[in-house]
Amino acid sequence: METEQVNRVMGDEEKERARGVGKKRKVRYTGLFIRLVALLLSLAAAIILGLDKQSKVVPITLVSTLPPIKVPVTAKYHYLSAFTYFVVANAVASSYGAVVLILTVANRGSKAGKLAKAIIILDLIMVAVLASANGAAAAVGYLGHEGNKHVRWNKVCNIFGRFCNLVIVAVGVSLLGSLSYIFLIVLAVLSVHKKH
Amino acid sequence: METEQVNRVMGDEEKERARGVGKKRKVRYTGLFIRLVALLLSLAAAIILGLDKQSKVVPITLVSTLPPIKVPVTAKYHYLSAFTYFVVANAVASSYGAVVLILTVANRGSKAGKLAKAIIILDLIMVAVLASANGAAAAVGYLGHEGNKHVRWNKVCNIFGRFCNLVIVAVGVSLLGSLSYIFLIVLAVLSVHKKH
Repeated sequence: METEQVNRVMGDEEKERARGVGKKRKVRYTGLFIRLVALLLSLAAAIILGLDKQSKVVPITLVSTLPPIKVPVTAKYHYLSAFTYFVVANAVASSYGAVVLILTVANRGSKAGKLAKAIIILDLIMVAVLASANGAAAAVGYLGHEGNKHVRWNKVCNIFGRFCNLVIVAVGVSLLGSLSYIFLIVLAVLSVHKKH
Repeated sequence: METEQVNRVMGDEEKERARGVGKKRKVRYTGLFIRLVALLLSLAAAIILGLDKQSKVVPITLVSTLPPIKVPVTAKYHYLSAFTYFVVANAVASSYGAVVLILTVANRGSKAGKLAKAIIILDLIMVAVLASANGAAAAVGYLGHEGNKHVRWNKVCNIFGRFCNLVIVAVGVSLLGSLSYIFLIVLAVLSVHKKH
């Protein structure tokens, strides 16, 4: 009688396990897809702001009795520390994404163990790094657009319109990238909890 | 024979479970403590920058043949959008922390289920919000300290020294707060994984 019960329990467990494996595989493929998207978005954000450059000739009046002098001015990401941080953070996030993608595909047969834990924690760090980079770039971009009369910082986006628009695009793309990393962690947390 | 085996397995499982309960309790108390720290740090950061204010009388030369006019100027957090975002983000994080602390203490007897999942995901969102707020405030604070010749934004921290120093303190405290939320997620992820 007890042996039978044990067998029945075992059968149920096996079925449960088979169902679990199917779900696990689905979660893994979804994870791989989101990771690829995150990688590409971070890479795109780094490239958009990294290559963003605008040169203009601006007339500057030094002495009111003389005609204005034409000065060539250029906008580049590395003129502002926040933009440099943004490009570096997105480059790091996309490189990290590529390494994890290769590791995940290479280890697809093995059990999710310490590596899976490490990946969740590193994903979390990427979310924090990308979010801070987005915050920094958005804050400086906003100042460029609006200026600030309290600290007497004039807006510069009326001069560098194209540069500023590409900053907005880069921040938007990077924001989607950091959201993808958030989704990856949510997926991992939910899939682990489901097994209980 | 098989019955004995079943009993032995049951005994081991019970021991394992008892050990698990002890570990779980330890993890829960550590979690509660870190959550309290996170709450207090976010609250402190919001209060430090929220109450930060410095007034100064600055001599401004309008016409070179006349003596400079003395103009009173004030620095406050809501003069810069990045600082407003910082104060709001930290206020939200500390309020959220207080709600979760109350919920966790109230539900300490019940099993960790959907609520635990929801808390991990909300903690993750807090990390992203706090990190972006830190990035924004740090970027603007850096510009205030150093200025930027490319966009002709003059530094203002030579005038508002005390205000700027408190901005640095607030960003540092908020950074520790966001690290506490990161630790909470790491703790949750590791404790869930340990059970397998």
